[in-house]
Amino acid sequence: MPAFIRAIPDGDDRERLTCPDCGFIAYENPKIVVGSVVSAEGRILLCRRAIEPRRGFWTLPAGFMEMGETVEEGARREAWEEAQVRIALEGVLAVYSIARLGQVQVIFRAGFAEPGFAAGPESLEVRLFGWEEIPWAEIAFPSARWALTRWQEMAGKPLAAPATNPPEDARGTRPLPQPAGL
Amino acid sequence: MPAFIRAIPDGDDRERLTCPDCGFIAYENPKIVVGSVVSAEGRILLCRRAIEPRRGFWTLPAGFMEMGETVEEGARREAWEEAQVRIALEGVLAVYSIARLGQVQVIFRAGFAEPGFAAGPESLEVRLFGWEEIPWAEIAFPSARWALTRWQEMAGKPLAAPATNPPEDARGTRPLPQPAGL
Ligand SMILES: [Zn+2]
Ligand SMILES: [Zn+2]
Repeated sequence: MPAFIRAIPDGDDRERLTCPDCGFIAYENPKIVVGSVVSAEGRILLCRRAIEPRRGFWTLPAGFMEMGETVEEGARREAWEEAQVRIALEGVLAVYSIARLGQVQVIFRAGFAEPGFAAGPESLEVRLFGWEEIPWAEIAFPSARWALTRWQEMAGKPLAAPATNPPEDARGTRPLPQPAGL
Repeated sequence: MPAFIRAIPDGDDRERLTCPDCGFIAYENPKIVVGSVVSAEGRILLCRRAIEPRRGFWTLPAGFMEMGETVEEGARREAWEEAQVRIALEGVLAVYSIARLGQVQVIFRAGFAEPGFAAGPESLEVRLFGWEEIPWAEIAFPSARWALTRWQEMAGKPLAAPATNPPEDARGTRPLPQPAGL
């Protein structure tokens, strides 16, 4: 891969990474991480990371959202991949911005849809922790600590806002109607 | 720009767009739209689009989040760019997935931080509408209708969840502490 250069494309207002060979413009956009605080009877599911960064530290089941899925589907997929758990989403618990990394994290509150969990390929170990047992010094990321704290604050309370997609277009896949003449 | 081909990179598990000339992998990630339902005394700010898609239709001040900003900063920037308005955010009103477009929309509820607004370069016109005046047939996107409907449902109610960044790292810019030995 050639060295990309920073240049302002025609019609744009800021520098973008551009391939000097082929002119490809690598627009760098913030990425979306989807994850969940999954609990059962007051105990919270954490995964011990098998990969860098923060290998060996504990975190929530979470990862990068893929094209073609909804935030809900992404959160369920990540819970399955990392903790082999089928989750039932209750609502959005937190929306965090990690400006340093160009990341937005959408974190759900969830329960178990089916019993059972196990370490997926990116986890060394998956365990349920009571609130008093959480290994705070070994939590991988500040945002995981924030989400756990928020989970505790909201325990037993409804997640009133935000709304997510309405039932008539739960995946945001309906085409736009043809524009009417204005 | 050469024609990109779809191929599964080493170590990945799905097809990505790849440049056959230089090997650049164009990971397509979902993009984040940030926007706001901005109101004053029960009237809602809408922008009539000067650009495609949906030129001439009305929408919320919203647009693609940029690298290095938080969702809050992006929503304020877009309100300024499209409606020349300084807004005060109240909280996250909605998180929508437009799977068809690979898009996640984070929509805030906001008020005016300063009086005054005007059409920015991407708007033909900016106006305040009472709830009964909203031109529903001329709203540009379903998600703008969803957000307006949600705004009405939540009128006068607190936006309890989700949390956003805690004050001690409001922009998500603090570096991670050095890993302690485990
Ligand atoms: Zn190239
Ligand atoms: Zn190329």
